[in-house]
Amino acid sequence: MRVMIVGGDGYCGFATAMYLSKRGHEVAILDSLIRRHWDNELGIESLTPISSTGKRLQRWYELTGKRIPFYMGDACNYPFLVNAVREFGPDAIVHFGEQRAAPFSMIDREHAVLTQVNNVVGTLNLLYAIRDECPDCHLVKLGTMGEYGTPNIDIEEGYITVEYKGRKDTLPYPKQPGSFYHLSKVHDSHNIMFACRIWDLRATDLNQGVVYGVHTAETLEMEDEVLVNRLDYDETFGTVLNRFCIQAAVGHPLTVYGKGGQTRGFIDIRDTVRCIEIAVDNPAPKGKMQVFNQITEQFSVLQLAEKVVEAGKALGIRAEINHVDNPRIEAEEHYYNAAHTRLLDLGLQPHFLSESLLDSLLNVAIHYKDRVDPAHIKPVTTWSVGRISG
Amino acid sequence: MRVMIVGGDGYCGFATAMYLSKRGHEVAILDSLIRRHWDNELGIESLTPISSTGKRLQRWYELTGKRIPFYMGDACNYPFLVNAVREFGPDAIVHFGEQRAAPFSMIDREHAVLTQVNNVVGTLNLLYAIRDECPDCHLVKLGTMGEYGTPNIDIEEGYITVEYKGRKDTLPYPKQPGSFYHLSKVHDSHNIMFACRIWDLRATDLNQGVVYGVHTAETLEMEDEVLVNRLDYDETFGTVLNRFCIQAAVGHPLTVYGKGGQTRGFIDIRDTVRCIEIAVDNPAPKGKMQVFNQITEQFSVLQLAEKVVEAGKALGIRAEINHVDNPRIEAEEHYYNAAHTRLLDLGLQPHFLSESLLDSLLNVAIHYKDRVDPAHIKPVTTWSVGRISG
Repeated sequence: MRVMIVGGDGYCGFATAMYLSKRGHEVAILDSLIRRHWDNELGIESLTPISSTGKRLQRWYELTGKRIPFYMGDACNYPFLVNAVREFGPDAIVHFGEQRAAPFSMIDREHAVLTQVNNVVGTLNLLYAIRDECPDCHLVKLGTMGEYGTPNIDIEEGYITVEYKGRKDTLPYPKQPGSFYHLSKVHDSHNIMFACRIWDLRATDLNQGVVYGVHTAETLEMEDEVLVNRLDYDETFGTVLNRFCIQAAVGHPLTVYGKGGQTRGFIDIRDTVRCIEIAVDNPAPKGKMQVFNQITEQFSVLQLAEKVVEAGKALGIRAEINHVDNPRIEAEEHYYNAAHTRLLDLGLQPHFLSESLLDSLLNVAIHYKDRVDPAHIKPVTTWSVGRISG
Repeated sequence: MRVMIVGGDGYCGFATAMYLSKRGHEVAILDSLIRRHWDNELGIESLTPISSTGKRLQRWYELTGKRIPFYMGDACNYPFLVNAVREFGPDAIVHFGEQRAAPFSMIDREHAVLTQVNNVVGTLNLLYAIRDECPDCHLVKLGTMGEYGTPNIDIEEGYITVEYKGRKDTLPYPKQPGSFYHLSKVHDSHNIMFACRIWDLRATDLNQGVVYGVHTAETLEMEDEVLVNRLDYDETFGTVLNRFCIQAAVGHPLTVYGKGGQTRGFIDIRDTVRCIEIAVDNPAPKGKMQVFNQITEQFSVLQLAEKVVEAGKALGIRAEINHVDNPRIEAEEHYYNAAHTRLLDLGLQPHFLSESLLDSLLNVAIHYKDRVDPAHIKPVTTWSVGRISG
């Protein structure tokens, strides 16, 4: 299969590009590198030292003999996007190319607008490009479990069958997202569902949970630092479990926001890449947006912190838990039960969160701990008034 | 009350400005006049000859002694918006200032992107401006009944209480909008709901049905052509009942799209202005987005065409119904039952669609029929491929 990965230089994107390339797919990356620019803008850096995209792809070629063409540019730039799509001719487009951090979108009005315009326009452009250039191409779009919020009923996979006043219908699952970023993904979902319906396109919306981990089979096997994946520990782009491990490694108390009863779905990055492959291998029927909840387990934030404390002990780390004022506005205790059987039914064999994964992640964090700038650990972006000075 | 009307130069906006001004409110208009520009761009014109905004407001002052300040600029321009809000100090902001035509949004990719960016960014800007300049100000936002689509269960007002697998919750009503324009309103609704929740703002989302009519008490009483409201008959901006009356007046067959079983909620423009007043007088509690379905009746498109044929007979007009190929992709026969009691409970006394309203509308159409350009009647914007040459 010819798979174009939009946002293929990012945390999930690059891991996916290597995985699919290794498994015999023809892969191309389309990326504007804006994520690296945002690092510069915020004065932050990946814990792991990441190489330039060109160097990464060159090394990948040297080690595997596989070429991954790189289209450098922005999916919001339609002429560029159309040319890339026309030239590469994808069977599937995997779309990671969005601003993906809730705190980034809450910094101020400009970042809220940037996030929504960037994400909505990029996805609209992809839908038009597919309609006009490759109408059979399957769009695999990264959504987020955060679209659902925390309703007091079970979360289903994208749609819910409701019986109401003696009638019945299957409807899009109601969305209650918790940031301007999460809202942008809800907007995307509605746009994609509509485009599939009117243009007979096929799309899979992967509502992914919080991703953790850094190594995938490819990076472990190659043992080459040029291929190392990014690992964010800053309050803006760092995801919670990765952050906790890095905090533990540098002796920083684990920053549990508020009570820590916030429960979410989680997934190991090794499962992320496999889920993308499963989605690519199982295109939605024409005219449909199918939705998979891309998680393997659910935990509360406090449960995760406790697991990191435990795993730390074995490595001689005495991590402490610090309940900091919650910068977000969210329920800190709530019902949560999210369906996630569709990817399992299609063959996903999950890597559940284990002591050994935590060990490995803690060891990566210890290895690079001199690169940690403690100034970027504390939350400084609040939902009420935006970014406050640290 | 001090009421700022964003989009106050438009079809519903100007009628509302006059109505609220007459009823003793301090009214200001904020408008970029982009709607007039789109007329120029598409080569179309209101059936009624509309005066410049300045002339309208000057005449309003001469006839009533009431000044309506005019802030000319774009809600997407944040510094301009903030200055206007700061200077006027509104108790309520009525937001009509969006691209409001489904066919316009379906012309091509550029118009889809323009519609969504314009509408989403304008509303985000308003939310930030209210948060930072006047946090008690009540946002009265024009949504659309088209956000709901045509589900096979009853449509409620904004929220639905669902019992599901033994649990229960009240959730945002699932949305299945039918164009990139309608989608933009769904995006707005989600953004507003979130902003109310995290910033303790108050908003009323008015899901308005298809508006018909041209005169309101103010224009009838003043009998001054400078104050006449716009009346669109073109396929892009004309609403269905207004279009049918004008088609009848010029002897054009009534363009029923497909079977005509498409059922929608409708409202007389005299009720629109009253609904806005009711919303302004009944602000949502802090932290909440309340939703009213702003319709008074529901009809199928074919029923409306038949009513126009009947009313025409009395005026000696022999109108014919022509089932044209449906340019839209939509269900042409479906269940439809939309709740609309909340505005009635707050005092709305509806003008139901009557023979006399149709008479009056047909007479306006006959009066101006020499201004009709028949080239703009036929639908040329298709949902499948966008605008086709006429």
